[in-house]
Amino acid sequence: MPGECILLGPGPSLVPPEVTAALSAPMVGHMDPELFPILGEIVAALRRVFQTDNELTFPLSATGTGAMEALLLHLVRPGQRLAVCTAGFFADRLADIGRRIGAEVIRVEAPWGRAVDPADLERALASAGRTGVAAVAAAHVETSTGVLQPLEDLVRIAHRHDAAMLVDAVASLGGVDLPVDRWDIDACYSGSQKCLSAPPGLAPLTVHQRTRGRHTPATFYFDLEALWRYWGPARAYHHTVPVPFLYALRAALRLVLDEGLPDRVSRHWRHARGLWRGLEALGLELLVADRERSPTVTTVLIPAGVDDARVRARLLREHGIEIAGGLGDLRGRIWRIGLMGHSSQPRWVLLLLGALEAALAAEGYRAPQGAAVAQAAAALAG
Amino acid sequence: MPGECILLGPGPSLVPPEVTAALSAPMVGHMDPELFPILGEIVAALRRVFQTDNELTFPLSATGTGAMEALLLHLVRPGQRLAVCTAGFFADRLADIGRRIGAEVIRVEAPWGRAVDPADLERALASAGRTGVAAVAAAHVETSTGVLQPLEDLVRIAHRHDAAMLVDAVASLGGVDLPVDRWDIDACYSGSQKCLSAPPGLAPLTVHQRTRGRHTPATFYFDLEALWRYWGPARAYHHTVPVPFLYALRAALRLVLDEGLPDRVSRHWRHARGLWRGLEALGLELLVADRERSPTVTTVLIPAGVDDARVRARLLREHGIEIAGGLGDLRGRIWRIGLMGHSSQPRWVLLLLGALEAALAAEGYRAPQGAAVAQAAAALAG
Repeated sequence: MPGECILLGPGPSLVPPEVTAALSAPMVGHMDPELFPILGEIVAALRRVFQTDNELTFPLSATGTGAMEALLLHLVRPGQRLAVCTAGFFADRLADIGRRIGAEVIRVEAPWGRAVDPADLERALASAGRTGVAAVAAAHVETSTGVLQPLEDLVRIAHRHDAAMLVDAVASLGGVDLPVDRWDIDACYSGSQKCLSAPPGLAPLTVHQRTRGRHTPATFYFDLEALWRYWGPARAYHHTVPVPFLYALRAALRLVLDEGLPDRVSRHWRHARGLWRGLEALGLELLVADRERSPTVTTVLIPAGVDDARVRARLLREHGIEIAGGLGDLRGRIWRIGLMGHSSQPRWVLLLLGALEAALAAEGYRAPQGAAVAQAAAALAG
Repeated sequence: MPGECILLGPGPSLVPPEVTAALSAPMVGHMDPELFPILGEIVAALRRVFQTDNELTFPLSATGTGAMEALLLHLVRPGQRLAVCTAGFFADRLADIGRRIGAEVIRVEAPWGRAVDPADLERALASAGRTGVAAVAAAHVETSTGVLQPLEDLVRIAHRHDAAMLVDAVASLGGVDLPVDRWDIDACYSGSQKCLSAPPGLAPLTVHQRTRGRHTPATFYFDLEALWRYWGPARAYHHTVPVPFLYALRAALRLVLDEGLPDRVSRHWRHARGLWRGLEALGLELLVADRERSPTVTTVLIPAGVDDARVRARLLREHGIEIAGGLGDLRGRIWRIGLMGHSSQPRWVLLLLGALEAALAAEGYRAPQGAAVAQAAAALAG
């Protein structure tokens, strides 16, 4: 069995002991009446975390990628048009799945490391013509670049063109503010293993009433209305839900709500700023400009002459610290550091900066006289 | 948190303590090199349990219903024909999903509680005409009825008509003999939570090389070739696999292989026969004739004048024993008792018979002077 690992990659994040303990509570069947109040508590907690009154709100028995597919199947029929705001690997995946399920995909692009410009979406939708676009999709935090995409303008533009707005909140829910109802988002999904700090394997999602009842989707496993007949008051069997993961998710959601969303979001920002100050003191450059940067995933340019894989292997081998490399064109050019949920702690920021400074020194990289750890510690103190 | 429950329904089954303990081992990331040997061990173990040399063999991050959809998407394109041998709720689900993904479904039916007659499949395929049928699907054990469907004739007939054979082994893998290669099955899936006795949430599957590379399926989450690039030697990221469940599945598979498949299968038969003798001594009638009966799921007719829900509620409330009611037309007419994996133990057979006798007596049902428990105990001793 692998040893204890300090998970500071872009997910999964560290799991608090209360959540791990919940995994081994006695198993019951998926139709046991004792399970039903737990299902109800999860639904109610997820509504609070999504800041929504949407009835259809529950965790899918799949990862975030499964929820991406489920919500596209819910919103878009074969032959319909889907606009994808993309500036990274995961929004590209939205486009890929859109094509696979038979949608005509319109790409609204920005360079990787930048947010998508709402004016580009406006132009794309305006030129889409009379038949229109069924849905617009965007990633709130693009996990491959660490960009925090402003959403309110995108939603307004989508609605002006009668398109539903779908938001990927895999690396944002529970870490940055995401008021689904106030921003009028039509459909939104996340993963259990990032800012919520449960194990991977469940994908919380929510959809607005106005998107419901349009068609029977080309899927059964991901048929949200059929799933809601289990998660909602009817309690009709759909599939065998992964009960231990539901225990864990409930424990994780209790911790989120006990902390309180505003405090939790502040914590993510404060610790990210500490990390950023420390990285800058090490003389490292961040991929994303300050005003477009997400606190949940930080992307650092790898200095010239430093070997990506060797540094990550050293962090993992010597200290059991996991960070990630880049995806796609950013492979070998950036590191991705996640400070999400239970991983967003001052101690891990300081440890990572120290370990990174040592690993960079072993590569012959000379950090400026910056006292990185001290500067980070000052920022961490708020 | 619910109390300890003795799971004797048609799944999930009881989880052995070694498997529960594995759930709380330290989490690592899905791309951690320390995880890769665990993935390799799971693949190798699943090949032994499926009795196959198929390369593409791994657990899907979904339940058995998800694997049902994944394998249909793998084998059948929209517009192609799919023949479904159905005599129950779960084979009907195969037909439902087939229709949703755009297949033209041909139903080959038998009454619920009976096996499908191979001659009926032969007739259906012979009359399908020149364009043929892409795949034939059948449930090895139909969980809604407890029928064990003989497969060899179905496979032969499917292949004679150039159709691929898809087998639902959700309630059979690890409990009854299923030699995938010897029977020449093209694609097969199961669930983690039945005869393998891991928690629900993973779906082991295997597909033959000859079914591969036909098309890009209308799914990304369930794209087997893309998933194999993670599970196979390439180790390319696809989605964030549910690491704690993989630890648990590995522990469960070790227990299966330590026991040995032939001994495990014998155990399932021996304990089921004990249960059947005991139920008959209670004067109860079984839905399925002896020669078509699966040892993993037993279906009992509810005697006249006995209330289904009340008896099950009493078992659950007084003894923490879960059994299930019927699905579809069998609702209120049968009980379903599972003796799968870790739930297949003599103690639970004796306890259930005793508890059922007491619950039936409370309903005014007079069991014949049969000494049910004693008769069961004799059969359990083999």
